[in-house]
Amino acid sequence: MARMRCKRCRQPAVIEVRRHNAAFCRDCFFHYVRQQVTRAIAKHSMLAPGDRVLVAVSGGKDSLALWDLLLELGCQADGLYMSLGIGAYSERSREVGQAFADAHGAKLVVCDLAAEHGYSIPEAAGSGGRSSCAVCGLSKRYVFNRVALEGGYDVVATGHNLDDEAAVLFANTLRWDTATMARQFPVLEATRPGLVKKVKPLYRLAERETAAYCVLKGIDYVVEECPLVAGNTQLRHKETLNRMEEASPGTKHNFLFGFLDRAAELLRSADAAELTECSRCGMVTQLPEDPDQAPVCAFCRSRERLLGAKARERALPVVRVNAR
Amino acid sequence: MARMRCKRCRQPAVIEVRRHNAAFCRDCFFHYVRQQVTRAIAKHSMLAPGDRVLVAVSGGKDSLALWDLLLELGCQADGLYMSLGIGAYSERSREVGQAFADAHGAKLVVCDLAAEHGYSIPEAAGSGGRSSCAVCGLSKRYVFNRVALEGGYDVVATGHNLDDEAAVLFANTLRWDTATMARQFPVLEATRPGLVKKVKPLYRLAERETAAYCVLKGIDYVVEECPLVAGNTQLRHKETLNRMEEASPGTKHNFLFGFLDRAAELLRSADAAELTECSRCGMVTQLPEDPDQAPVCAFCRSRERLLGAKARERALPVVRVNAR
Repeated sequence: MARMRCKRCRQPAVIEVRRHNAAFCRDCFFHYVRQQVTRAIAKHSMLAPGDRVLVAVSGGKDSLALWDLLLELGCQADGLYMSLGIGAYSERSREVGQAFADAHGAKLVVCDLAAEHGYSIPEAAGSGGRSSCAVCGLSKRYVFNRVALEGGYDVVATGHNLDDEAAVLFANTLRWDTATMARQFPVLEATRPGLVKKVKPLYRLAERETAAYCVLKGIDYVVEECPLVAGNTQLRHKETLNRMEEASPGTKHNFLFGFLDRAAELLRSADAAELTECSRCGMVTQLPEDPDQAPVCAFCRSRERLLGAKARERALPVVRVNAR
Repeated sequence: MARMRCKRCRQPAVIEVRRHNAAFCRDCFFHYVRQQVTRAIAKHSMLAPGDRVLVAVSGGKDSLALWDLLLELGCQADGLYMSLGIGAYSERSREVGQAFADAHGAKLVVCDLAAEHGYSIPEAAGSGGRSSCAVCGLSKRYVFNRVALEGGYDVVATGHNLDDEAAVLFANTLRWDTATMARQFPVLEATRPGLVKKVKPLYRLAERETAAYCVLKGIDYVVEECPLVAGNTQLRHKETLNRMEEASPGTKHNFLFGFLDRAAELLRSADAAELTECSRCGMVTQLPEDPDQAPVCAFCRSRERLLGAKARERALPVVRVNAR
């Protein structure tokens, strides 16, 4: 095969983007990435001039690429790192996020889940009920919104890429969870006090493109997957989608964009949840069906279950069993 | 593993149905199959007493199981075999359909595509444009409706099973072809003169269950896939769904039934096609967007393209090339 050339400038290419039938040299790839991000921002009115943006920073390729791109675009973007308490993995993630902040003269807000809310994600993994991935997602959504609200930020930006969005949509579509599908959009407006606007400026970029962006830009990021994630459903769905993408490039793009262009609006009416304030923490939650029931948000319910399980464990005498 | 026992009668089981967490002996399996079919018929008001039903018979497991079940239920059900001209495969399929009809004292109507419409499916395969599977599907839908209309039948019944329906829905969902999705339902009413009602009484049964039904009932059917189908997209989607089903039994069921229960209604408005009569054949077709354009149905357009290609081929001098 002849060496690929950049679609824009005809120089030797460093990366191929099969779904767009394109290849790019380093500089034109940066141009392409910026173009996809500015297109996403413009198309969905994600950011207004002067907005204070809080970037959800995990230390991975997506969040650091996002932070880098937003800073380059001149946004006022602070990072929020939430420590999940996953041992050396969390420690290294925080260091990488801090190093990026220092190198770019940006501010990293750090929130420690265990210190502020009394539990870590590995503890959630051991406590039955929801999977640790579910508790982690729930905790992040809650903390990002709350920290942004308390810090006076206008927007929370997350690094969800095309692969993430396609995999989540795929999972929800397989069981036609129409209410969740109706909320899966690159932008979620703050429809009432207590909610901060959420945006996903990377939704047009594939996973390997955000990775390539970091590598080519010299951004150090945490390459390892979270050690708790192995075998989770989303990874399986990503593998399924990757096999289909391999056989037919553009499958993920067409699936996600077709949904956004043609189906999301039709499903919108499935998201009929009425909102109110959580009786525990005051944040926004769904109105209970039973009018006599005090509204308690999913985060407070999950947290109380976890703290209850921890208290019971402490109260029990420790019995050590010598196996065999 | 202990030998499985029938969920209904505790006798040794002959088949496991993992998505229902069940296993059945021969007789209870027949009971289960009949129950699923009568449930399908009742839930969607597929058949009314005295309806004359035309069963689309390919000679495969699904169509013969369907015919058998409808006859058992006391329906007035004739078969329609459409010869596609695929050599020995078509010949054997017709014989198997005829043998079933003879053994059951039923009537098989035979329609030869080449004799009546001037082309065979292998000819469609060679002529560019649509794939042969697409031409075959289009031809079948047209001929089944037309023969039923001319024969005064009330309903056309097809043997689409759960795997077929899930795979078609999967393909349409991957590209969010919402207009087609809005029409994918176990019953399609005859919404205007020229259309015959279509029903799919096997949509609750998996492929291996219709096969097992035939085997256990001693129904001889054509086991081979159509020789033209190899590598087609639907087969690939079936493999993908089978892998997911293996990892998580019930995936196909939840995908199809979740769609029917929760999403189909929301997408209904996507099917806004206005209908009219084809200016060539008089059958129902979509109203063209351009009001000056005469409406021509997809079947007539495809047929004219195919016959045109055949005529051009005959007109060209035959040049034989000695390769190498």
